[in-house]
Amino acid sequence: MNEVYPSKLLERTVGEFSKLPGIGRRTALRLVLHLLRQKPETGHALSESLSQLIDGVKYCKVCHNISDTDICDICSNPLRDQSTVCVVENIRNVLSIENTSIYRGLYHVLGGIISPIDGIGPNNLEIDSLVKRVEEGGIQEIIFALSPTMEGDTTNFFISRKLAPFNVRLTTLARGISVGDELEYTDEITLGRSIINRVELKQ
Amino acid sequence: MNEVYPSKLLERTVGEFSKLPGIGRRTALRLVLHLLRQKPETGHALSESLSQLIDGVKYCKVCHNISDTDICDICSNPLRDQSTVCVVENIRNVLSIENTSIYRGLYHVLGGIISPIDGIGPNNLEIDSLVKRVEEGGIQEIIFALSPTMEGDTTNFFISRKLAPFNVRLTTLARGISVGDELEYTDEITLGRSIINRVELKQ
Repeated sequence: MNEVYPSKLLERTVGEFSKLPGIGRRTALRLVLHLLRQKPETGHALSESLSQLIDGVKYCKVCHNISDTDICDICSNPLRDQSTVCVVENIRNVLSIENTSIYRGLYHVLGGIISPIDGIGPNNLEIDSLVKRVEEGGIQEIIFALSPTMEGDTTNFFISRKLAPFNVRLTTLARGISVGDELEYTDEITLGRSIINRVELKQ
Repeated sequence: MNEVYPSKLLERTVGEFSKLPGIGRRTALRLVLHLLRQKPETGHALSESLSQLIDGVKYCKVCHNISDTDICDICSNPLRDQSTVCVVENIRNVLSIENTSIYRGLYHVLGGIISPIDGIGPNNLEIDSLVKRVEEGGIQEIIFALSPTMEGDTTNFFISRKLAPFNVRLTTLARGISVGDELEYTDEITLGRSIINRVELKQ
Protein backbone atom coordinates (compact mmCIF):
# COMPACT_ATOMS: atom_id res chain seq x y z
CA MET A 1 0.00 0.00 0.00
CA ASN A 2 1.28 3.40 -0.96
CA GLU A 3 -0.79 5.28 1.52
CA VAL A 4 -0.73 9.01 1.84
CA TYR A 5 -0.95 9.73 5.55
CA PRO A 6 -2.50 13.01 6.65
CA SER A 7 0.16 13.35 9.39
CA LYS A 8 3.89 12.61 9.41
CA LEU A 9 3.71 11.76 13.13
CA LEU A 10 0.97 9.26 12.42
CA GLU A 11 2.85 7.80 9.47
CA ARG A 12 6.02 7.30 11.54
CA THR A 13 4.18 5.61 14.40
CA VAL A 14 2.24 3.34 12.04
CA GLY A 15 5.55 2.49 10.37
CA GLU A 16 7.12 1.49 13.69
CA PHE A 17 4.12 -0.62 14.73
CA SER A 18 4.04 -2.38 11.37
CA LYS A 19 7.60 -3.63 11.97
CA LEU A 20 6.18 -5.95 14.65
CA PRO A 21 5.73 -9.56 13.54
CA GLY A 22 2.26 -10.29 12.22
CA ILE A 23 1.26 -6.61 12.24
CA GLY A 24 0.65 -5.17 8.78
CA ARG A 25 0.22 -1.48 8.01
CA ARG A 26 -3.56 -1.74 8.15
CA THR A 27 -3.52 -3.34 11.62
CA ALA A 28 -0.84 -0.90 12.76
CA LEU A 29 -3.05 2.01 11.71
CA ARG A 30 -6.00 0.50 13.59
CA LEU A 31 -3.89 0.08 16.76
CA VAL A 32 -2.45 3.60 16.61
CA LEU A 33 -5.84 5.24 15.94
CA HIS A 34 -7.24 3.19 18.83
CA LEU A 35 -4.55 4.59 21.12
CA LEU A 36 -5.34 8.13 19.92
CA ARG A 37 -8.98 7.63 20.90
CA GLN A 38 -7.97 6.67 24.46
CA LYS A 39 -6.77 9.03 27.21
CA PRO A 40 -3.19 10.18 26.52
CA GLU A 41 -2.04 8.25 29.61
CA THR A 42 -2.88 4.91 27.95
CA GLY A 43 -0.51 5.44 25.05
CA HIS A 44 2.14 7.03 27.26
CA ALA A 45 2.00 4.04 29.62
CA LEU A 46 2.65 1.72 26.67
CA SER A 47 5.47 3.91 25.40
CA GLU A 48 7.13 4.32 28.81
CA SER A 49 6.85 0.71 29.90
CA LEU A 50 8.48 -0.41 26.66
CA SER A 51 11.28 2.12 26.97
CA GLN A 52 11.97 1.17 30.58
CA LEU A 53 11.90 -2.53 29.74
CA ILE A 54 14.44 -2.09 26.93
CA ASP A 55 16.75 -0.02 29.12
CA GLY A 56 16.28 -2.11 32.24
CA VAL A 57 16.04 -5.64 30.92
CA LYS A 58 18.49 -8.13 32.42
CA TYR A 59 19.10 -11.75 31.77
CA CYS A 60 19.81 -14.13 34.65
CA LYS A 61 23.55 -14.86 34.79
CA VAL A 62 22.84 -18.49 35.63
CA CYS A 63 19.95 -19.59 33.42
CA HIS A 64 19.72 -16.65 30.92
CA ASN A 65 16.01 -16.20 31.57
CA ILE A 66 14.72 -12.62 31.48
CA SER A 67 14.93 -11.04 34.92
CA ASP A 68 14.87 -7.74 36.83
CA THR A 69 17.92 -8.84 38.85
CA ASP A 70 21.29 -10.44 38.10
CA ILE A 71 20.07 -13.82 39.31
CA CYS A 72 16.43 -14.54 38.46
CA ASP A 73 13.67 -15.36 40.96
CA ILE A 74 13.66 -19.01 39.94
CA CYS A 75 17.42 -19.59 40.30
CA SER A 76 17.53 -17.74 43.62
CA ASN A 77 14.50 -19.50 45.09
CA PRO A 78 15.73 -21.93 47.80
CA LEU A 79 12.47 -23.89 47.56
CA ARG A 80 13.21 -24.95 43.97
CA ASP A 81 15.00 -28.22 43.26
CA GLN A 82 18.55 -27.07 42.45
CA SER A 83 19.58 -30.52 41.19
CA THR A 84 17.28 -30.55 38.14
CA VAL A 85 17.72 -28.27 35.13
CA CYS A 86 15.26 -28.07 32.26
CA VAL A 87 16.85 -26.99 28.96
CA VAL A 88 14.54 -24.81 26.84
CA GLU A 89 14.85 -22.85 23.62
CA ASN A 90 13.50 -19.51 24.79
CA ILE A 91 11.88 -17.46 27.52
CA ARG A 92 8.36 -18.24 26.33
CA ASN A 93 9.05 -21.94 26.94
CA VAL A 94 9.98 -21.12 30.55
CA LEU A 95 6.64 -19.35 30.96
CA SER A 96 4.75 -22.28 29.39
CA ILE A 97 6.34 -24.78 31.77
CA GLU A 98 5.94 -22.48 34.78
CA ASN A 99 2.24 -22.18 33.99
CA THR A 100 1.79 -25.93 34.42
CA SER A 101 2.78 -25.53 38.12
CA ILE A 102 4.23 -29.05 37.87
CA TYR A 103 7.93 -28.38 37.53
CA ARG A 104 9.92 -27.25 40.59
CA GLY A 105 13.47 -27.40 39.24
CA LEU A 106 15.60 -24.78 37.47
CA TYR A 107 15.94 -23.81 33.81
CA HIS A 108 18.59 -23.14 31.20
CA VAL A 109 17.55 -20.93 28.30
CA LEU A 110 19.62 -21.73 25.18
CA GLY A 111 18.43 -18.71 23.22
CA GLY A 112 17.56 -20.86 20.18
CA ILE A 113 18.26 -24.26 18.71
CA ILE A 114 20.93 -25.43 16.29
CA SER A 115 19.69 -24.54 12.80
CA PRO A 116 22.31 -24.34 10.05
CA ILE A 117 19.68 -23.01 7.62
CA ASP A 118 19.20 -19.94 9.85
CA GLY A 119 22.95 -19.70 10.48
CA ILE A 120 22.58 -20.70 14.14
CA GLY A 121 25.40 -22.96 15.32
CA PRO A 122 26.24 -24.27 18.80
CA ASN A 123 28.43 -21.22 19.48
CA ASN A 124 25.44 -18.88 19.12
CA LEU A 125 23.66 -20.69 21.94
CA GLU A 126 24.18 -20.87 25.70
CA ILE A 127 25.61 -24.39 25.55
CA ASP A 128 29.05 -23.75 27.07
CA SER A 129 27.48 -22.11 30.10
CA LEU A 130 25.24 -25.17 30.54
CA VAL A 131 28.24 -27.49 30.45
CA LYS A 132 29.93 -25.24 32.99
CA ARG A 133 26.90 -25.44 35.30
CA VAL A 134 27.04 -29.22 35.15
CA GLU A 135 30.83 -29.21 35.66
CA GLU A 136 30.43 -27.17 38.82
CA GLY A 137 28.45 -30.07 40.29
CA GLY A 138 25.15 -30.35 42.15
CA ILE A 139 23.07 -31.08 39.04
CA GLN A 140 21.72 -34.61 38.86
CA GLU A 141 19.28 -34.39 35.96
CA ILE A 142 19.00 -32.43 32.74
CA ILE A 143 15.54 -32.45 31.12
CA PHE A 144 15.55 -31.56 27.43
CA ALA A 145 12.37 -29.65 26.55
CA LEU A 146 13.17 -28.62 22.97
CA SER A 147 10.80 -28.77 20.01
CA PRO A 148 10.37 -32.27 18.54
CA THR A 149 11.86 -31.15 15.22
CA MET A 150 15.04 -32.11 13.41
CA GLU A 151 16.71 -28.97 14.81
CA GLY A 152 15.54 -29.79 18.33
CA ASP A 153 16.77 -33.36 18.06
CA THR A 154 20.14 -32.17 16.67
CA THR A 155 20.51 -29.79 19.60
CA ASN A 156 19.58 -32.52 22.08
CA PHE A 157 22.16 -34.81 20.51
CA PHE A 158 24.90 -32.16 20.46
CA ILE A 159 24.39 -31.20 24.11
CA SER A 160 24.02 -34.78 25.30
CA ARG A 161 27.41 -35.62 23.76
CA LYS A 162 28.96 -32.64 25.54
CA LEU A 163 27.46 -33.84 28.83
CA ALA A 164 28.39 -37.50 28.35
CA PRO A 165 31.55 -37.25 30.53
CA PHE A 166 29.49 -36.16 33.53
CA ASN A 167 27.44 -38.35 35.82
CA VAL A 168 24.12 -36.70 35.12
CA ARG A 169 20.80 -38.19 34.09
CA LEU A 170 19.57 -36.94 30.70
CA THR A 171 15.84 -37.06 30.02
CA THR A 172 13.43 -35.58 27.50
CA LEU A 173 9.75 -34.69 27.65
CA ALA A 174 7.33 -37.56 27.02
CA ARG A 175 5.78 -37.54 23.55
CA GLY A 176 2.34 -39.05 23.24
CA ILE A 177 -1.32 -38.40 22.71
CA SER A 178 -2.47 -35.03 24.07
CA VAL A 179 -4.70 -35.19 27.13
CA GLY A 180 -8.25 -35.04 25.78
CA ASP A 181 -7.25 -36.01 22.23
CA GLU A 182 -8.90 -38.89 20.43
CA LEU A 183 -6.86 -41.76 18.98
CA GLU A 184 -8.22 -41.43 15.47
CA TYR A 185 -7.12 -37.79 15.18
CA THR A 186 -3.59 -38.37 16.48
CA ASP A 187 -0.86 -38.39 13.82
CA GLU A 188 0.90 -41.71 13.18
CA ILE A 189 4.32 -40.67 14.48
CA THR A 190 2.95 -39.44 17.79
CA LEU A 191 0.74 -42.53 18.12
CA GLY A 192 3.73 -44.76 17.31
CA ARG A 193 5.86 -43.05 19.94
CA SER A 194 3.07 -43.36 22.49
CA ILE A 195 3.05 -47.14 21.93
CA ILE A 196 6.84 -47.46 22.26
CA ASN A 197 6.87 -45.32 25.41
CA ARG A 198 3.79 -46.91 26.99
CA VAL A 199 3.58 -46.68 30.78
CA GLU A 200 2.24 -49.04 33.46
CA LEU A 201 -1.46 -48.64 34.12
CA LYS A 202 -1.80 -47.39 37.69
CA GLN A 203 -4.46 -49.31 39.59
CA MET B 1 -4.03 -16.86 32.06
CA ASN B 2 -2.53 -16.33 35.47
CA GLU B 3 1.01 -16.12 34.25
CA VAL B 4 3.94 -15.67 36.58
CA TYR B 5 6.31 -13.36 34.74
CA PRO B 6 10.02 -13.57 35.47
CA SER B 7 10.29 -9.78 35.28
CA LYS B 8 8.00 -7.01 36.51
CA LEU B 9 9.17 -4.75 33.68
CA LEU B 10 8.22 -7.44 31.18
CA GLU B 11 4.89 -8.05 32.88
CA ARG B 12 4.01 -4.36 32.79
CA THR B 13 4.92 -3.96 29.11
CA VAL B 14 3.01 -7.11 28.14
CA GLY B 15 0.06 -5.76 30.12
CA GLU B 16 0.11 -2.47 28.21
CA PHE B 17 0.40 -4.18 24.81
CA SER B 18 -2.44 -6.55 25.63
CA LYS B 19 -4.77 -3.56 26.10
CA LEU B 20 -4.61 -3.02 22.34
CA PRO B 21 -7.64 -4.31 20.41
CA GLY B 22 -7.19 -7.86 19.13
CA ILE B 23 -3.93 -8.35 21.04
CA GLY B 24 -4.16 -10.98 23.78
CA ARG B 25 -1.54 -11.59 26.47
CA ARG B 26 0.08 -14.36 24.45
CA THR B 27 0.47 -12.17 21.35
CA ALA B 28 1.59 -9.24 23.51
CA LEU B 29 4.34 -11.41 25.02
CA ARG B 30 5.44 -12.49 21.55
CA LEU B 31 5.60 -8.87 20.35
CA VAL B 32 7.52 -7.64 23.39
CA LEU B 33 10.02 -10.52 23.29
CA HIS B 34 10.47 -9.82 19.59
CA LEU B 35 11.34 -6.20 20.37
CA LEU B 36 13.81 -7.35 23.03
CA ARG B 37 15.58 -9.48 20.44
CA GLN B 38 16.05 -6.44 18.16
CA LYS B 39 18.51 -3.60 18.61
CA PRO B 40 17.40 -1.27 21.44
CA GLU B 41 16.84 1.49 18.86
CA THR B 42 13.96 -0.44 17.29
CA GLY B 43 11.91 -0.51 20.46
CA HIS B 44 12.88 3.02 21.42
CA ALA B 45 11.80 4.26 17.98
CA LEU B 46 8.38 2.69 18.53
CA SER B 47 8.13 4.12 22.02
CA GLU B 48 9.24 7.63 21.04
CA SER B 49 7.16 7.90 17.88
CA LEU B 50 4.05 6.93 19.85
CA SER B 51 4.79 9.41 22.61
CA GLN B 52 5.43 12.23 20.15
CA LEU B 53 2.28 11.39 18.21
CA ILE B 54 0.13 11.50 21.34
CA ASP B 55 1.62 14.81 22.47
CA GLY B 56 1.72 16.36 19.01
CA VAL B 57 -1.44 15.09 17.37
CA LYS B 58 -3.76 17.74 15.99
CA TYR B 59 -7.08 17.56 14.24
CA CYS B 60 -7.86 19.81 11.31
CA LYS B 61 -10.08 22.69 12.46
CA VAL B 62 -12.09 22.48 9.26
CA CYS B 63 -12.61 18.78 8.52
CA HIS B 64 -11.47 17.16 11.83
CA ASN B 65 -9.10 14.82 10.02
CA ILE B 66 -5.84 14.01 11.83
CA SER B 67 -3.14 16.52 10.91
CA ASP B 68 0.23 17.94 11.91
CA THR B 69 -1.06 21.46 11.39
CA ASP B 70 -4.18 23.43 12.34
CA ILE B 71 -5.58 23.08 8.84
CA CYS B 72 -4.83 19.72 7.19
CA ASP B 73 -3.01 19.22 3.90
CA ILE B 74 -6.22 18.31 2.11
CA CYS B 75 -8.23 21.35 3.25
CA SER B 76 -5.35 23.72 2.52
CA ASN B 77 -4.58 22.27 -0.91
CA PRO B 78 -5.73 24.82 -3.55
CA LEU B 79 -5.79 22.07 -6.19
CA ARG B 80 -8.62 20.24 -4.42
CA ASP B 81 -12.23 20.91 -5.31
CA GLN B 82 -13.40 23.14 -2.43
CA SER B 83 -17.04 22.88 -3.47
CA THR B 84 -17.44 19.15 -2.72
CA VAL B 85 -17.32 17.66 0.79
CA CYS B 86 -17.35 13.94 1.50
CA VAL B 87 -18.83 13.08 4.90
CA VAL B 88 -17.10 10.07 6.54
CA GLU B 89 -17.28 8.35 9.89
CA ASN B 90 -13.59 8.27 10.76
CA ILE B 91 -10.01 8.97 9.72
CA ARG B 92 -9.52 5.47 8.30
CA ASN B 93 -12.33 6.16 5.83
CA VAL B 94 -10.47 9.27 4.63
CA LEU B 95 -7.39 7.12 4.01
CA SER B 96 -9.45 4.50 2.16
CA ILE B 97 -10.98 7.07 -0.16
CA GLU B 98 -7.65 8.90 -0.66
CA ASN B 99 -6.08 5.59 -1.68
CA THR B 100 -8.49 5.30 -4.59
CA SER B 101 -6.92 8.50 -6.08
CA ILE B 102 -10.38 9.18 -7.57
CA TYR B 103 -11.74 11.82 -5.22
CA ARG B 104 -10.38 15.38 -5.42
CA GLY B 105 -12.78 17.18 -3.07
CA LEU B 106 -12.62 17.82 0.68
CA TYR B 107 -13.76 15.74 3.68
CA HIS B 108 -15.69 16.10 6.87
CA VAL B 109 -14.90 13.54 9.59
CA LEU B 110 -17.92 13.05 11.87
CA GLY B 111 -16.00 11.05 14.49
CA GLY B 112 -18.62 8.27 14.51
CA ILE B 113 -22.20 7.64 13.47
CA ILE B 114 -25.45 8.03 15.38
CA SER B 115 -25.83 4.88 17.48
CA PRO B 116 -28.19 5.09 20.46
CA ILE B 117 -27.08 1.59 21.58
CA ASP B 118 -23.52 2.89 22.04
CA GLY B 119 -24.78 6.14 23.54
CA ILE B 120 -23.67 8.18 20.53
CA GLY B 121 -26.12 10.93 19.65
CA PRO B 122 -25.88 13.76 17.09
CA ASN B 123 -24.28 16.04 19.69
CA ASN B 124 -21.31 13.69 20.06
CA LEU B 125 -20.54 14.05 16.37
CA GLU B 126 -19.16 16.90 14.24
CA ILE B 127 -22.53 17.64 12.68
CA ASP B 128 -22.95 21.27 13.76
CA SER B 129 -19.57 22.17 12.31
CA LEU B 130 -20.63 20.57 9.00
CA VAL B 131 -23.82 22.63 8.93
CA LYS B 132 -21.71 25.71 9.65
CA ARG B 133 -19.38 24.89 6.76
CA VAL B 134 -22.38 24.66 4.43
CA GLU B 135 -23.89 27.86 5.89
CA GLU B 136 -20.69 29.76 5.13
CA GLY B 137 -21.26 29.01 1.46
CA GLY B 138 -19.08 27.72 -1.34
CA ILE B 139 -20.12 24.08 -0.94
CA GLN B 140 -22.21 22.71 -3.78
CA GLU B 141 -22.29 18.99 -3.02
CA ILE B 142 -22.16 16.81 0.07
CA ILE B 143 -21.33 13.14 -0.58
CA PHE B 144 -22.38 10.81 2.23
CA ALA B 145 -19.88 7.95 2.54
CA LEU B 146 -21.14 6.30 5.73
CA SER B 147 -21.54 2.57 6.32
CA PRO B 148 -24.67 1.08 4.69
CA THR B 149 -26.08 0.11 8.10
CA MET B 150 -29.11 1.30 10.03
CA GLU B 151 -26.85 3.64 12.01
CA GLY B 152 -25.29 5.00 8.83
CA ASP B 153 -28.69 5.54 7.22
CA THR B 154 -29.98 7.24 10.39
CA THR B 155 -27.00 9.58 10.35
CA ASN B 156 -27.48 10.33 6.64
CA PHE B 157 -31.13 11.11 7.29
CA PHE B 158 -30.42 13.31 10.31
CA ILE B 159 -27.77 15.35 8.52
CA SER B 160 -29.75 15.63 5.29
CA ARG B 161 -32.66 17.12 7.24
CA LYS B 162 -30.30 19.67 8.82
CA LEU B 163 -28.97 20.58 5.39
CA ALA B 164 -32.41 20.75 3.71
CA PRO B 165 -32.66 24.57 4.01
CA PHE B 166 -29.48 25.04 1.99
CA ASN B 167 -29.12 24.84 -1.74
CA VAL B 168 -26.65 21.96 -1.80
CA ARG B 169 -26.72 18.69 -3.70
CA LEU B 170 -26.77 15.64 -1.40
CA THR B 171 -25.46 12.36 -2.79
CA THR B 172 -24.39 9.00 -1.41
CA LEU B 173 -21.95 6.36 -2.61
CA ALA B 174 -23.27 3.93 -5.22
CA ARG B 175 -24.16 0.50 -3.83
CA GLY B 176 -23.84 -2.40 -6.18
CA ILE B 177 -21.92 -5.48 -7.11
CA SER B 178 -18.21 -5.25 -6.25
CA VAL B 179 -15.89 -5.00 -9.22
CA GLY B 180 -14.77 -8.56 -9.95
CA ASP B 181 -17.59 -10.16 -7.95
CA GLU B 182 -19.86 -12.74 -9.50
CA LEU B 183 -23.64 -12.36 -9.58
CA GLU B 184 -24.37 -15.64 -7.85
CA TYR B 185 -22.29 -14.73 -4.79
CA THR B 186 -23.75 -11.24 -4.35
CA ASP B 187 -26.26 -10.90 -1.51
CA GLU B 188 -29.88 -10.21 -2.47
CA ILE B 189 -30.07 -6.70 -1.00
CA THR B 190 -26.96 -5.52 -2.85
CA LEU B 191 -28.14 -7.19 -6.06
CA GLY B 192 -31.58 -5.59 -5.62
CA ARG B 193 -30.04 -2.15 -5.15
CA SER B 194 -27.84 -2.65 -8.18
CA ILE B 195 -30.95 -3.28 -10.28
CA ILE B 196 -32.78 -0.21 -8.96
CA ASN B 197 -29.70 2.00 -9.45
CA ARG B 198 -28.79 0.58 -12.85
CA VAL B 199 -26.76 2.87 -15.11
CA GLU B 200 -26.69 3.43 -18.87
CA LEU B 201 -24.38 1.07 -20.72
CA LYS B 202 -21.61 3.18 -22.22
CA GLN B 203 -20.98 2.32 -25.86
